[in-house]
Amino acid sequence: MNRKQLFEQIRKKGTVLCVGLDTDFDKMPEHIRAQALKGEVAAMGQLFKGRARSIIEFNKAIIDATAPYCVAYKPNLAFYECYGVDGMRALEVTVDYIRTSYPDIFIIADAKRGDIGNTARMYAKAYFETMDFDAVTLAPYMGQDSITPFLEYKDKWAIVLALTSNASATEFQLAQKDGRPLYQAVMEDMMSISTPDNMMFVVGATKADKLAEIRTFCPDNFLLVPGVGAQGGSEEEVIANGANDHAGLLINSSRAILYADSSGNFAAAAGKAAAATANYAG
Amino acid sequence: MNRKQLFEQIRKKGTVLCVGLDTDFDKMPEHIRAQALKGEVAAMGQLFKGRARSIIEFNKAIIDATAPYCVAYKPNLAFYECYGVDGMRALEVTVDYIRTSYPDIFIIADAKRGDIGNTARMYAKAYFETMDFDAVTLAPYMGQDSITPFLEYKDKWAIVLALTSNASATEFQLAQKDGRPLYQAVMEDMMSISTPDNMMFVVGATKADKLAEIRTFCPDNFLLVPGVGAQGGSEEEVIANGANDHAGLLINSSRAILYADSSGNFAAAAGKAAAATANYAG
Repeated sequence: MNRKQLFEQIRKKGTVLCVGLDTDFDKMPEHIRAQALKGEVAAMGQLFKGRARSIIEFNKAIIDATAPYCVAYKPNLAFYECYGVDGMRALEVTVDYIRTSYPDIFIIADAKRGDIGNTARMYAKAYFETMDFDAVTLAPYMGQDSITPFLEYKDKWAIVLALTSNASATEFQLAQKDGRPLYQAVMEDMMSISTPDNMMFVVGATKADKLAEIRTFCPDNFLLVPGVGAQGGSEEEVIANGANDHAGLLINSSRAILYADSSGNFAAAAGKAAAATANYAG
Repeated sequence: MNRKQLFEQIRKKGTVLCVGLDTDFDKMPEHIRAQALKGEVAAMGQLFKGRARSIIEFNKAIIDATAPYCVAYKPNLAFYECYGVDGMRALEVTVDYIRTSYPDIFIIADAKRGDIGNTARMYAKAYFETMDFDAVTLAPYMGQDSITPFLEYKDKWAIVLALTSNASATEFQLAQKDGRPLYQAVMEDMMSISTPDNMMFVVGATKADKLAEIRTFCPDNFLLVPGVGAQGGSEEEVIANGANDHAGLLINSSRAILYADSSGNFAAAAGKAAAATANYAG
């Protein structure tokens, strides 16, 4: 998906919400977890049982309830890898389900990968060829080598970690590089090898005061902003400080939407939470 | 596996070699690639066909030929993820095969993961519970949150990127933090939350001149050293500058061993290359 299509979807739906599909079996409603004890069911032409069955049922219900109110989904790979091969099958089916049911929606692999060029090419193949993601999150520690292979795909995106939302984010991200904090050096370095059509950056909502400053040297790129909801960032501040003339923001919420309710009503509650999050008047 | 057991294996075998299982279908010998076109075969109680079949056959042959001459294997996850679910099945079978056939050998998931604490716990579960790795490589950009969940497992290891072997490594790894280069700040920070019994660092062989300096502030931890062989680092310099009284080194070689020969003789050639690499007299 290209930048124009993403912006059109944002205007049409009036939101910059990205729903993080950090699907945790232990946090699902009891009746969905109970499906793991039942037999096989078919989904997208394959048979599933056990935890994979519960994860797929949960994700499909969440996606159907939230699709009108979001412009992107972001499965975090850790939540699928932790169940091994079954988890990876559930991830592939989830991506296929979004792609076939809601083809306008942007899909991000929250993978935070970063490796030497030879290896980065294999990760790019994993997310952009074997699986049909639009974008993948990447860690910048190893430099440009680890990012460039992802920029060679048309209408696909690299989303590089800049200033993250977690408590220990500033330990290394505020180191100094040529008179700038490291996160700024990372962004300026990455902007020099990319365009706003194939590069986004992760800036945590818990660092909302930094967004206005970031917009002085990075006016055009989309910023993926986690940390609203469970992590406590303010979406009003994020939009006030971070929006640009192409919206320029994807605000992610995961736990506050996925686990809004633990009863049989969980999907409707997730839809309601999504409808109330990250509204954007444009 | 604990540090004592790893050191004992090094003394017994007289090597600090780690074989990187960066198994690339396109680089395998033709007769192994051709197996992808044949029917299913059983391995470790499962049925495999297609590329997964070739990858498993190749890895088993490489492992059987090199096991006497190495103390560790390090599959890089990108080379398995790029084939989706089939690739992940091949990875799981490879790990099981090493564990059951050569139980003394240390197994590293070269994953370079790094995410917020909540998510890092899921990655730890993936590599230390769902799969039976001894260690996982991690990226430090997000700080301590992203590392601590891996330190909670007995006799398991976090291996944190410090100074890597690739061309663009120094773009950010030499940023300044409190009067030290960033890679040193990363190492000292990580040493403050861990012990030499559960923490190693990645230092590239292409930075061998830095190893002696690194040993002044990090005398005890094992260092995982990639970059000999295809990347051009010198193993003699690495051992001279980096060894300590518990060996303290794992020297990784991947392509120079895996693809030493592209004929029917590839496994014997890999064994010969392994026998000649990273010898350590103690």
